[in-house]
Amino acid sequence: MKSKHKILIAGGDMRQIYCASRLSSGYIAGIIGFDEELIPSVNSFISSAEGTPFDCAVLPVLPLDEAGMISTPCFRGSISAEDIKNLLKPDSIIFAGRIDEKLREAFEGYQLCDYMESEALNLKNAVPTAEGAVQIALDELPVTLSGLRVLIVGMGRIGRALAEILKGFGSDVTAAVRSARGTANSRIHGIKSVCTDKMDGNYDLVFNTAPHIIFDRELLGRFGEKTLFIDLASKPGGIDFDAAAELGIKAIWALGLPGKTAPVTSGEIIAETVIDIITEMEEAYG
Amino acid sequence: MKSKHKILIAGGDMRQIYCASRLSSGYIAGIIGFDEELIPSVNSFISSAEGTPFDCAVLPVLPLDEAGMISTPCFRGSISAEDIKNLLKPDSIIFAGRIDEKLREAFEGYQLCDYMESEALNLKNAVPTAEGAVQIALDELPVTLSGLRVLIVGMGRIGRALAEILKGFGSDVTAAVRSARGTANSRIHGIKSVCTDKMDGNYDLVFNTAPHIIFDRELLGRFGEKTLFIDLASKPGGIDFDAAAELGIKAIWALGLPGKTAPVTSGEIIAETVIDIITEMEEAYG
Amino acid sequence: MKSKHKILIAGGDMRQIYCASRLSSGYIAGIIGFDEELIPSVNSFISSAEGTPFDCAVLPVLPLDEAGMISTPCFRGSISAEDIKNLLKPDSIIFAGRIDEKLREAFEGYQLCDYMESEALNLKNAVPTAEGAVQIALDELPVTLSGLRVLIVGMGRIGRALAEILKGFGSDVTAAVRSARGTANSRIHGIKSVCTDKMDGNYDLVFNTAPHIIFDRELLGRFGEKTLFIDLASKPGGIDFDAAAELGIKAIWALGLPGKTAPVTSGEIIAETVIDIITEMEEAYG
Amino acid sequence: MKSKHKILIAGGDMRQIYCASRLSSGYIAGIIGFDEELIPSVNSFISSAEGTPFDCAVLPVLPLDEAGMISTPCFRGSISAEDIKNLLKPDSIIFAGRIDEKLREAFEGYQLCDYMESEALNLKNAVPTAEGAVQIALDELPVTLSGLRVLIVGMGRIGRALAEILKGFGSDVTAAVRSARGTANSRIHGIKSVCTDKMDGNYDLVFNTAPHIIFDRELLGRFGEKTLFIDLASKPGGIDFDAAAELGIKAIWALGLPGKTAPVTSGEIIAETVIDIITEMEEAYG
Repeated sequence: MKSKHKILIAGGDMRQIYCASRLSSGYIAGIIGFDEELIPSVNSFISSAEGTPFDCAVLPVLPLDEAGMISTPCFRGSISAEDIKNLLKPDSIIFAGRIDEKLREAFEGYQLCDYMESEALNLKNAVPTAEGAVQIALDELPVTLSGLRVLIVGMGRIGRALAEILKGFGSDVTAAVRSARGTANSRIHGIKSVCTDKMDGNYDLVFNTAPHIIFDRELLGRFGEKTLFIDLASKPGGIDFDAAAELGIKAIWALGLPGKTAPVTSGEIIAETVIDIITEMEEAYG
Repeated sequence: MKSKHKILIAGGDMRQIYCASRLSSGYIAGIIGFDEELIPSVNSFISSAEGTPFDCAVLPVLPLDEAGMISTPCFRGSISAEDIKNLLKPDSIIFAGRIDEKLREAFEGYQLCDYMESEALNLKNAVPTAEGAVQIALDELPVTLSGLRVLIVGMGRIGRALAEILKGFGSDVTAAVRSARGTANSRIHGIKSVCTDKMDGNYDLVFNTAPHIIFDRELLGRFGEKTLFIDLASKPGGIDFDAAAELGIKAIWALGLPGKTAPVTSGEIIAETVIDIITEMEEAYG
Repeated sequence: MKSKHKILIAGGDMRQIYCASRLSSGYIAGIIGFDEELIPSVNSFISSAEGTPFDCAVLPVLPLDEAGMISTPCFRGSISAEDIKNLLKPDSIIFAGRIDEKLREAFEGYQLCDYMESEALNLKNAVPTAEGAVQIALDELPVTLSGLRVLIVGMGRIGRALAEILKGFGSDVTAAVRSARGTANSRIHGIKSVCTDKMDGNYDLVFNTAPHIIFDRELLGRFGEKTLFIDLASKPGGIDFDAAAELGIKAIWALGLPGKTAPVTSGEIIAETVIDIITEMEEAYG
Repeated sequence: MKSKHKILIAGGDMRQIYCASRLSSGYIAGIIGFDEELIPSVNSFISSAEGTPFDCAVLPVLPLDEAGMISTPCFRGSISAEDIKNLLKPDSIIFAGRIDEKLREAFEGYQLCDYMESEALNLKNAVPTAEGAVQIALDELPVTLSGLRVLIVGMGRIGRALAEILKGFGSDVTAAVRSARGTANSRIHGIKSVCTDKMDGNYDLVFNTAPHIIFDRELLGRFGEKTLFIDLASKPGGIDFDAAAELGIKAIWALGLPGKTAPVTSGEIIAETVIDIITEMEEAYG
């Protein structure tokens, strides 16, 4: 593939516009699924109708909506998988986030690649996720983060990024960990740690990053109304929100943070990931 | 003064309620100038009508409104200086923030004490002010603070508090300083510095803390539309906002931050300051 | 195993004494292979001759010396594998660091366990290793770390621990990384990164953590005499020391740092690891 | 003064050589009072015998030795005040550190200027002093600074620089302060504080920066043998060293740290200060 790739960015929220901007600096980029006025004129996007078909398409995270159309929250119209396929070469690669069975069916015969499964993307997203979580805490709390007793559950990538930021605020940070590995990771970041099953409730703010219920009714009861919970875990979350509500505990489930609080950074991370994957493929196949 | 002081908190925004809460743990505290439903029942405030008159009164920052009444944004009714004086002993101390000539007239014969002139209060307010400024940046910017090129103008108390927080975010922080003292203070905080008159415009975000116009039309022109300005300086501010608007530069003048973004911390700082002043007076006069 | 374990700490440097002290708080601990006057009297170590035989033995890192005896740098006498076996139960566990074929032969029939292969131990050792590396830099350099341009090669556990410490000193830290994963890890720690094959030589201090030659003659030439190199990589190291010497570049190979610069912490980490392994075994086998 | 100044650096330790190197980039610099082989050949120092006399002289900190000669620890020979005066213009300025009556007499009729009285110099020296203090702690302690309970007495410039560094190590830092100002300064640096007269002895390491005896026998007794004291205060120091010795407490009085542990940085700070003073004088007098 000597000539410059042609990439079609199709649908999604503002992140995908920023993703397209970044991609347009190294590739020929086209956009569909966005209202005209949202597309920045400074970028030299080509019209999707121009010239030869595209080499690949970049679809959004959760690419299909309930009706089976491409998810296009920034578009008055709608686009289908067929509309996209009509603009692609037969052997095109389809990039998308959280690919499911329905998308596989819609793009049968195409090579699909889930950029959300890239470890680098998830590591990079840790920073905007952590910043977004801290932003929520600042918005919600009538007190300063300075001196606040903060518990971070889990010292994975998001927990570690949170630890760095909160140390800067002068919070009194403790990590809740389950293993000697977690303890050691806490030390590397210069913070205290406590074993998950020995937590007491003496914290003003809790960030959960563990993707399974840790804060059940009993444990929530130890904390009480004065603690704010912010859950950053995806799938089932780590907090029993019903129990929290009954106990008068404020618990916020913050999903999709990178896209919401830092759409430019988030879009650029998707673009960087797509570029890395394309570059790797080229190196592998010559 | 052996017996417990009786302090009257009169008027102001929610900060003064939190101030009253803190004061009520060491003194007998009464509140006027707030709607009933705003006053937390957990605190044992006395009714202002109860028993002996009060030893001192705590008025808000900018204590009088335009009509010359006590400023009471959280009260449907209104209270005058006379209403307060009727509840006080003749030799009472009147605490207030930013005392002006009108207040001196209204409380002629009383000892007045401006808690906003306390160095400790202003130092303590640096932390909620810096946190509030960072909150604004997080709310406004579509990118992460991580890796962002940030300029802090002035390494006084607020500049220094900002430096600490931004280092935690992994921002690329530079201080703009005017003297060898500023350079040295930057080094203590582990950040780079540049001389104020040698600044170039290569920054994504600028926090100004200098209380005089630094960013005039010429200097703003060097920065351009991509830079967000947040001005934390009180009196005249440090940015020519008209020029900024004409140049298409977003500039936010963030005034009264501690009270807005961290009212509890802010109210407690006022209370701590009042307590310190009372304690000092007692130590001085026996 | 309901009754308290009896553990024999046999040989090694001062680390093993501190390891024994920590173990003695949860187990019955005995020591051999140390001169009497080195053993702190405050600890209640039992004599190795006392009562029933031991349940397990903790040997040092690199347990055998060249003569095939247990390594005992703190002992005027000498002890052999046989001496130890005489004090053990037949089914005892032998803990040691860097177990080789010779040790396996010497303790044939016993269960051997290499504590240096524990991920938690290696993670925990990252902190004393990084602190020791910074101590060397402080001892060697006639300038402050504040403002110094420092390159950390590798963002593994030691590189990450170094980043945290150097940020506190206000150094201008860059990580040299080889993958998007390394870049992302740098962002989590709030530092810049550069691709390993795009490094220029503009650094005052380089810490290498990569366990293969990165700094060959050509690359060292780009740095020159003004840069101090500290190599923390174990096996072959990451610097061509001969080339460095010829180029007049000071390069220090810092091996075994945790034991040298923080023997107490280092001994306690070995003890914690042994305790974790014993506890896991008990949980597994009931 | 249009033409380039001629500055004579006379005597002192290695710091003054580095001071001379920095000065030689903006001025014509000459050196006396150092053995030939110590003077780096890369610098273009002029011989003191060359051409016109010098405009000013820079003498070391504590400029005279006991015999009343210029202090020259790096020189086999000796130089007197007269030797220097013979090389100077009549209206020369004499820079020196800690000027006393004897120096005033020796240079009667000359304008004397004590660079150690510069606030900027003292602020800048805070960083090398704090780094040197941490270096001593690393050298002395057999444990890591990570997780260590450290008390910093005084939140002046050195205390603040120490706080920054120790936070990077992940130490558990508390500041001992005497006023609300100290408390507020601690918050800006994101660390806890305790009132000086309410300190308990639960610290592993104490840095004193207060220039008067705080740690008397009674207070030292509360700490005990397990605490390491490092005193950074100049004049009388803050620790009763006799009492410490009797109580078996290790206490180190670390004087002149910037010059010892970071002579290059320290010499450059002196040079920067001299340059600032000369520049100010020129601006003032035209």
